Amino acid sequence: MSGHSYVSLLTDYGTRDEFVGVVKCVIADVAPHATVIDITHDVAPFDVRAGSLALARAVPYVPRGVVMAVVDPGVGSSRRAIAVSVAGGTGIFVGPDNGLLAPAVALAGGAESAVELANPRYHLDAPGATFAGRDVFAPVAGHLCAGVPLSEMGPEIDPSGILPGVVPLPREVDGALHCEVTWVDRFGNCQLNVSAEEAAALGPVLRVVIGAEDPARAIERSAPVVASYSAIGGGLGLVVDSYGMLSIATDRGSAAVETGLGAGALVVLSAGTAPATPVQIGRAPRA
Amino acid sequence: MSGHSYVSLLTDYGTRDEFVGVVKCVIADVAPHATVIDITHDVAPFDVRAGSLALARAVPYVPRGVVMAVVDPGVGSSRRAIAVSVAGGTGIFVGPDNGLLAPAVALAGGAESAVELANPRYHLDAPGATFAGRDVFAPVAGHLCAGVPLSEMGPEIDPSGILPGVVPLPREVDGALHCEVTWVDRFGNCQLNVSAEEAAALGPVLRVVIGAEDPARAIERSAPVVASYSAIGGGLGLVVDSYGMLSIATDRGSAAVETGLGAGALVVLSAGTAPATPVQIGRAPRA
Amino acid sequence: MSGHSYVSLLTDYGTRDEFVGVVKCVIADVAPHATVIDITHDVAPFDVRAGSLALARAVPYVPRGVVMAVVDPGVGSSRRAIAVSVAGGTGIFVGPDNGLLAPAVALAGGAESAVELANPRYHLDAPGATFAGRDVFAPVAGHLCAGVPLSEMGPEIDPSGILPGVVPLPREVDGALHCEVTWVDRFGNCQLNVSAEEAAALGPVLRVVIGAEDPARAIERSAPVVASYSAIGGGLGLVVDSYGMLSIATDRGSAAVETGLGAGALVVLSAGTAPATPVQIGRAPRA
Repeated sequence: MSGHSYVSLLTDYGTRDEFVGVVKCVIADVAPHATVIDITHDVAPFDVRAGSLALARAVPYVPRGVVMAVVDPGVGSSRRAIAVSVAGGTGIFVGPDNGLLAPAVALAGGAESAVELANPRYHLDAPGATFAGRDVFAPVAGHLCAGVPLSEMGPEIDPSGILPGVVPLPREVDGALHCEVTWVDRFGNCQLNVSAEEAAALGPVLRVVIGAEDPARAIERSAPVVASYSAIGGGLGLVVDSYGMLSIATDRGSAAVETGLGAGALVVLSAGTAPATPVQIGRAPRA
Repeated sequence: MSGHSYVSLLTDYGTRDEFVGVVKCVIADVAPHATVIDITHDVAPFDVRAGSLALARAVPYVPRGVVMAVVDPGVGSSRRAIAVSVAGGTGIFVGPDNGLLAPAVALAGGAESAVELANPRYHLDAPGATFAGRDVFAPVAGHLCAGVPLSEMGPEIDPSGILPGVVPLPREVDGALHCEVTWVDRFGNCQLNVSAEEAAALGPVLRVVIGAEDPARAIERSAPVVASYSAIGGGLGLVVDSYGMLSIATDRGSAAVETGLGAGALVVLSAGTAPATPVQIGRAPRA
Repeated sequence: MSGHSYVSLLTDYGTRDEFVGVVKCVIADVAPHATVIDITHDVAPFDVRAGSLALARAVPYVPRGVVMAVVDPGVGSSRRAIAVSVAGGTGIFVGPDNGLLAPAVALAGGAESAVELANPRYHLDAPGATFAGRDVFAPVAGHLCAGVPLSEMGPEIDPSGILPGVVPLPREVDGALHCEVTWVDRFGNCQLNVSAEEAAALGPVLRVVIGAEDPARAIERSAPVVASYSAIGGGLGLVVDSYGMLSIATDRGSAAVETGLGAGALVVLSAGTAPATPVQIGRAPRA
């Protein structure tokens, strides 16, 4: 094992402040040969779950090397800073042990070994304890790229003790799938936690109930399962998105704006065609 | 032809999601030696015209190599994915055939040859068809950097059949220039589709009519043609911007906020000085 | 001195337009071996002071080489474009002479020599004078990386004549410290211009008065001085931030939203514990 060439970087630091820039400076100082690839820095502040999902979506594509992820509301507290080795050491995840890394680690084949980043030799001296990205994770990432063995970074810990992520699974209720919006992207597409395969039994056109928590305000639509946004035509569609998941979408518009859906919202899918015109359930018929 | 060193990248992906990061991961995987330069990723979603104009403004400065641009509302539909060779093959544009590339290609000397990106050997297998940036354009850009010939990417197509961009030209009407705002930048400067040379015949101080579509609400100002924002003094000025175009601007303020102008708005320029104080046209005089 | 490998880059250009991308293209063209590190580009438009503070916070971490900073409301006017050498020539700052560079230069050990960027040989020909980042600073940064000596860039100027930055100092008034909010970060933490050492004499829990300019609306809180956000518990805390400065913060929330504080606001710190419940000063007691 003689080091790594890439640090793939995901944070909730935003780009308004100099945080990300300083992290890159620290990595460049320790490992001038390493290339940093920004996955994203606009995870909502403190939103560990959203960060873990973005990391999981990206991880099949990141180049071999170090993946550094920081969404870390507990920085400076007793939460552990860890590094996790996967795939025979060709990949190492670096970040807080708060569930952020776990889904991506699982997708990368699972943790083979892990250490707590407790060796101060590979950290920066810092006037304060609130910027572990700069003072702990970045120099560790850099030293790993420079060829320092993982075991130098701190004591080995049990990989099975790493805090798992919370990835919601769809539930089947009376033949319907109770799904959750896991992600609303920039274009307003609302990804559900259900794959095209899981939904296939329901048929080519699905009944979509939005807001089922409150039947008086729930909205029901009929939506075809299609392969592209332009195949939706008018109204809502269920596009098999680039991750193979169903995503509520419109053609050249924002499904999130049209439906009011946000991350975490309940969506109920079932078989059969509903009327083409939108229907509001639970309204008393007019006299 | 032995490959390229740069991929200059423009998209409407934003940076909130991991889209851009994943595109860079794919390029790094195929062409580790290539450097990606972000032109911008904040083209408004689906705004092909704004993307084409930003690309055209940037293209005189991009290094030799691959230019990948993706503003692609028709992704997954029948719109073609193409690559276009310019300048003896020292530059290759990669993107959708929807008008996005055409103005930049023209500025780079015109298309010398073009192919449709139909050879799946240079694409990624994907669980869905909605992310051509990741699955088609990025791997093609990477393989071009790695030295794979353009002709390998798919069947040759007629370069003259590429969808042209729509770049609006100013019109002369009764000695006045009817212009259009082509771009409002971060600072609120409103670039017009008229060069300093084209406007020179009108004189050093111009009459500017904003909102001429509705005479009752139109606003008329007098504005000097100047070389820097600080030369404007108070009020509005017409700065010869860094592209040689006239731009409605203020000194250390936002002309867009002050005037309400946005991309696509009509502005009428004519000779002569209007009163220094702003005048609203079409208002009935108060009794 | 045979050139530099890094250009650390800070601007107020934002990333919505292609400005930053074009700057990088120009640097790549002149100095293909140089790596550009983005410090930030989201300094508020024209906010020279905020830019100078961000640059000063970052500068202890930037790698040796060129630091290019552009927040330049006077572009095209008589303000000078300069380059400043520090630390035996291992660092060179490039930017406008408007106070932006001065605090960072001082932190880097002070200016050892300086030139005005008046040699057009190292500038780009440009159709307009408004984009010095592209036409002056970027090519100069590139040529410095490529090994062109600083003295080639223009006539030497007196380093002591460089416009100083304005960094506010806290004032002691009747045993209290009158501080200023220097920075509100993405998370809503409000950094004060007072270090943990300067405040240490006041004790481990401080009385914080916000809005003291208007006693009728002032708010007083008690806040512990702590080392991490999670140690705050409920309410406000004074965290020793990653720069060793006191920062008004909350645990997993935005202190800026809770307090209404912004950059430039007055905060008065004094010893002693105030009531745990927030108290509004200056309100007449209710009858």
